[in-house]
Amino acid sequence: MNSNSYGKLFSISTWGESHGGGIGVVVDGCPPKLPITEAEIQFELDRRRPGQSDITTPRKETDAVSIVSGTYNGKTIGTPIAMYVPNSDHRPEAYAEMKEKFRPSHADYTYQIKYGIKNHEGGGRSSARETVGRVAAGAIAKKILKLAGAVKIRSYVKRIKDIEANLSNDFPSLEAVEANPVRCPDPESAERMIKLIKDVRSQGDSVGGIIETRVRNLPVGLGEPVFDRLEADLAKGMLSLPATKGFEVGSGFSGTFLQGSEHNDLFENKDGKIGTKTNNSGGVQGGISNGEELIFRVAFKPTATILQPQQTVDTDGNETELKGRGRHDPCVLPRAVPIVEAMTALVLVDHWMRQSAQNKTFSFEE
Amino acid sequence: MNSNSYGKLFSISTWGESHGGGIGVVVDGCPPKLPITEAEIQFELDRRRPGQSDITTPRKETDAVSIVSGTYNGKTIGTPIAMYVPNSDHRPEAYAEMKEKFRPSHADYTYQIKYGIKNHEGGGRSSARETVGRVAAGAIAKKILKLAGAVKIRSYVKRIKDIEANLSNDFPSLEAVEANPVRCPDPESAERMIKLIKDVRSQGDSVGGIIETRVRNLPVGLGEPVFDRLEADLAKGMLSLPATKGFEVGSGFSGTFLQGSEHNDLFENKDGKIGTKTNNSGGVQGGISNGEELIFRVAFKPTATILQPQQTVDTDGNETELKGRGRHDPCVLPRAVPIVEAMTALVLVDHWMRQSAQNKTFSFEE
Amino acid sequence: MNSNSYGKLFSISTWGESHGGGIGVVVDGCPPKLPITEAEIQFELDRRRPGQSDITTPRKETDAVSIVSGTYNGKTIGTPIAMYVPNSDHRPEAYAEMKEKFRPSHADYTYQIKYGIKNHEGGGRSSARETVGRVAAGAIAKKILKLAGAVKIRSYVKRIKDIEANLSNDFPSLEAVEANPVRCPDPESAERMIKLIKDVRSQGDSVGGIIETRVRNLPVGLGEPVFDRLEADLAKGMLSLPATKGFEVGSGFSGTFLQGSEHNDLFENKDGKIGTKTNNSGGVQGGISNGEELIFRVAFKPTATILQPQQTVDTDGNETELKGRGRHDPCVLPRAVPIVEAMTALVLVDHWMRQSAQNKTFSFEE
Amino acid sequence: MNSNSYGKLFSISTWGESHGGGIGVVVDGCPPKLPITEAEIQFELDRRRPGQSDITTPRKETDAVSIVSGTYNGKTIGTPIAMYVPNSDHRPEAYAEMKEKFRPSHADYTYQIKYGIKNHEGGGRSSARETVGRVAAGAIAKKILKLAGAVKIRSYVKRIKDIEANLSNDFPSLEAVEANPVRCPDPESAERMIKLIKDVRSQGDSVGGIIETRVRNLPVGLGEPVFDRLEADLAKGMLSLPATKGFEVGSGFSGTFLQGSEHNDLFENKDGKIGTKTNNSGGVQGGISNGEELIFRVAFKPTATILQPQQTVDTDGNETELKGRGRHDPCVLPRAVPIVEAMTALVLVDHWMRQSAQNKTFSFEE
Repeated sequence: MNSNSYGKLFSISTWGESHGGGIGVVVDGCPPKLPITEAEIQFELDRRRPGQSDITTPRKETDAVSIVSGTYNGKTIGTPIAMYVPNSDHRPEAYAEMKEKFRPSHADYTYQIKYGIKNHEGGGRSSARETVGRVAAGAIAKKILKLAGAVKIRSYVKRIKDIEANLSNDFPSLEAVEANPVRCPDPESAERMIKLIKDVRSQGDSVGGIIETRVRNLPVGLGEPVFDRLEADLAKGMLSLPATKGFEVGSGFSGTFLQGSEHNDLFENKDGKIGTKTNNSGGVQGGISNGEELIFRVAFKPTATILQPQQTVDTDGNETELKGRGRHDPCVLPRAVPIVEAMTALVLVDHWMRQSAQNKTFSFEE
Repeated sequence: MNSNSYGKLFSISTWGESHGGGIGVVVDGCPPKLPITEAEIQFELDRRRPGQSDITTPRKETDAVSIVSGTYNGKTIGTPIAMYVPNSDHRPEAYAEMKEKFRPSHADYTYQIKYGIKNHEGGGRSSARETVGRVAAGAIAKKILKLAGAVKIRSYVKRIKDIEANLSNDFPSLEAVEANPVRCPDPESAERMIKLIKDVRSQGDSVGGIIETRVRNLPVGLGEPVFDRLEADLAKGMLSLPATKGFEVGSGFSGTFLQGSEHNDLFENKDGKIGTKTNNSGGVQGGISNGEELIFRVAFKPTATILQPQQTVDTDGNETELKGRGRHDPCVLPRAVPIVEAMTALVLVDHWMRQSAQNKTFSFEE
Repeated sequence: MNSNSYGKLFSISTWGESHGGGIGVVVDGCPPKLPITEAEIQFELDRRRPGQSDITTPRKETDAVSIVSGTYNGKTIGTPIAMYVPNSDHRPEAYAEMKEKFRPSHADYTYQIKYGIKNHEGGGRSSARETVGRVAAGAIAKKILKLAGAVKIRSYVKRIKDIEANLSNDFPSLEAVEANPVRCPDPESAERMIKLIKDVRSQGDSVGGIIETRVRNLPVGLGEPVFDRLEADLAKGMLSLPATKGFEVGSGFSGTFLQGSEHNDLFENKDGKIGTKTNNSGGVQGGISNGEELIFRVAFKPTATILQPQQTVDTDGNETELKGRGRHDPCVLPRAVPIVEAMTALVLVDHWMRQSAQNKTFSFEE
Repeated sequence: MNSNSYGKLFSISTWGESHGGGIGVVVDGCPPKLPITEAEIQFELDRRRPGQSDITTPRKETDAVSIVSGTYNGKTIGTPIAMYVPNSDHRPEAYAEMKEKFRPSHADYTYQIKYGIKNHEGGGRSSARETVGRVAAGAIAKKILKLAGAVKIRSYVKRIKDIEANLSNDFPSLEAVEANPVRCPDPESAERMIKLIKDVRSQGDSVGGIIETRVRNLPVGLGEPVFDRLEADLAKGMLSLPATKGFEVGSGFSGTFLQGSEHNDLFENKDGKIGTKTNNSGGVQGGISNGEELIFRVAFKPTATILQPQQTVDTDGNETELKGRGRHDPCVLPRAVPIVEAMTALVLVDHWMRQSAQNKTFSFEE
């Protein structure tokens, strides 16, 4: 499998660049008879769409999706599902300077050395525009999870720069997340985050932060030892998203300050069901889901594109200055929330099918 | 590819359990004519060997490796390299209680639900003993990297619980890392860490911490967009190691407190070579190595096995108590250092071969 | 990797059905800087196009291809190449009877049982229309092979039913193959084949036959022991084409009538180059190309769609009769010639990249 | 996945050479709780063992297998199953001439060019000794198929050179196949085959032929469109076996002499079950099993090793003569019968798990 594809059994192949005719994805391995509509997919795409609020990039894209193959009368038929989203508001002139100068903390330089050729009219495959395909495919994966077991995936902004949401242990509702453009279910913090984002934008600057994801109703048993542990595949999925710098599950980095006697999750009988008193494990033990809430966090760096002038070098290696211009998100997190959810769903469906294949295909009980 | 295998072109398949006859690994795709000896592999295995110091488990294993196939007269011949390490000091009686009771924060419960059967005489595949195979294969990968471009991988303990090493920006020498049993190149902090580990062990407790890894002399261009970004595959490799809870590259989680203008790595001309002034990117941009030092950190939780009594449930779901016993590492980090290095080498060699396959096989220059 | 994808390093994913909006393919892993135009791809698609002569199906499809992503200014840039061919002359009414009755020797029944749902308006993924994607991707692979080493792939009709071409050992020219609509480079036999095909069509019947493929200028060393021998991957590629029933390489089935002393290919020195006197091996030894001409044959069954009434059962299992109707090829071989060439090119490029990855990435010579 | 591995969900990795310490295989993805013993595996290994009769090689190998991991108390536990068979009667001196001279129609030359290094003490990975691993793994796959649905795989010799077995349509019993050393269930032909083999051996020569395989009780639905059709994967599996030159399913090459009206398999209602009157399809339609008997044939060339002197070249390219010596099978087919059965079982179990994963994991019925 090549690097534009993900998934062993429920697999996707994305294609398209920020500057070409459009973006697409082919989903292979989707079970037949799944009811799915373009509207369900469009719902998720609208959540990641540029220009959706006054704290995102003003690039205007309707991101209207078409299902080109793989369904019939609103149901999947077991064949590859091709989906396509045209680009409509690309402005190559905004990238004129890129032809000669490497943008700091972008992929311009590494792509140039790796491939020796590029379309300088945009970020190409390193642009977050590539994630359109993941979100479209993820909408299908989410539908499967919903029908298969009422599995709920909820991502939300937990921190922007140093403003951290004040959240209870309750599972946040979709409504609470969508209630504000920054997608933080704590309204008071959300307001401060929005103000911060507007402030840094007015400085021509950018900020990052942390997105947290919680998953409920996951069955016990997803995840494959040794290399394909559930958290390993989630880590890979998350670090494959643009602008991510870190991943942690359960207690994560802060759990390293505890001792084992504090950190261990003691088992208990919860009304006839085995569970744990605490959840430092974050829902996975030995790489396998244990029925507790799956919880993980992803660090997103401040957007690399800023409007301030920056020192850089040109393609001949001469030092020069790059004047910031173009449209960008001063903070990627609000639009990254549906992307993280989509990637989570893709990982989970693939693992669910793998678990079933090995452990449910044949039954050798006495 | 199944879950006990890793790598697309330089691939390994590990087998064996903590309680069986031994542990093995098959390396497929290793280039021919690589000079490699059992001694070079044994050197790395000795670094992860139980019983190597007074702060590790007292389990006595010589971990003597045999190369069973794939080499001739000290060189690889392009065929699969099978390696085998027998278990010698396994004590199944230490696991008697496990037959009926689930150990907290271990994989006992999830494995039981997933597979419905187990060998209760040990941790099986979830035991860190499985990493013997990775370290043996990693020794081959390290040799390739060394000969291919003097690539140096250095992992070391950066923090144990709340004791953080005080490190300069100099690349730590292997000697500095190996100078003390905790594998922290800051001797003063190392001493305090060792004392802490001994203290928690005397309480029947355990601690975790952070291992940092730095890689020098990596060529520009390793890593494949979109899903197989270098940091994505490193994240997967690290989170596939037992007891890990988090991964971060470059500025990681703390970088999210910066603004873009502070975080961006400005390009400069370093004596005719393009480089960056800072390295918040951690050596990867757009998922591709940029020639700067690759740097990442991994969080390890406190060891789950502790000697204090803990509440748990038995296989029938009844609440009960588990009395701690057996031999264990009060802190896994010292022995995890060579494991992290090995996994890093496996990821890098595989990506090097992929980069070469796509971009070097054919030349279409004008 | 899922079942609509092929290739480890040069990989393709095809999508689309005979009855939907169109057919597409995504090529991943294509090296950058390859010059490629839509015209070059269209040339191959025109060779497999319906309605190209009076011995093929009268379905009218222009099969006009668009390159949607992955190239810039006529060159590949290392990103996925998406290509799309719309369906224009689909007639769902021709398939009305299929809704209730299984067509003999078609995939209707097996797909129904496997998926439990279908679009009854056409053959779906089992239709040969799916091969549009392979031919488009194969055109790119052929271009690579041509530039990389003047590799020539020539497929042609060797036998239709019992009419066998009378061919010399000379490598047939493309012109000779394309000189007649049946694509047999022996003009006299071609004439008789064409007459036979017209005769069986007038009876509402169909015929099959054998396509032979020869490849020149292949380097020594392609093919990977043990499971991915070159002939194993060619066999898989060919048997994955619709209507194929057999594959043989070199001496094939008839070679089993010889004794070892007759069958062995003796080595000789051909003007300073090691070669073999005979070529019963067909260009592969131990699964690896040996520099001699690669030669193999593929058996195609007579087209399953015929215009005579046939006994069958309906979806309830009742016996009934199916009246033949619709447009079809009375013989698939003429249009299968470019498909076989395309599939051959896809196998060869992938193996070339694999050979390079393992054996050329690193050099450990003394 | 690399070239010494096979299978997507039920996967095997083989290792070891004819001349090293032994041969092994690791099976990954085997479902847990399968009862399996070393005796069941040994039964199949004994069928392929050298020296088992007076028409095979006199090399003496007990081929005694050990299960080293993956089972507990006679059952699989879901972890990798490692198996090992030591080499005991290797005679490197028999290969002394190979150091300098390429054996005709062997892999000596291609391996030398591909890898640039070799162990000249035997055939290495191109030796049929490699198939020990497949037969051991295949024994597990056969056990799964037997328990899952009483699936029976029966391979047998159909033709040796020009002596073809006279067989009825009855499914041959294992006893009938094992009743004679040539493994042909027609006793009269078997006797003539045995005489032929002894005759060619006395001439220092060799013969080939055809093995036919029939599979009963396979469920409808195995095989994945487009590239992983059941017959495509069987073709690959068979052509990956040493000495094979061809594969055909159902009517195969001879079916190309029929017209569609003769070749089509008409559906009928067989006591409430949908079936076909004839079986030219060989049990697969559209790449998917249709519930009829799966039937295919494999062509094996005459053994390349013969005892007559042959012209060849040495490693410097000088023409020379190779004097035949060493122990060899004058005809590989009798020992290849269990190998073909094993490879068939490996293909079928993997496809069964894939079919289950995609179509049984989730249920979306109204």
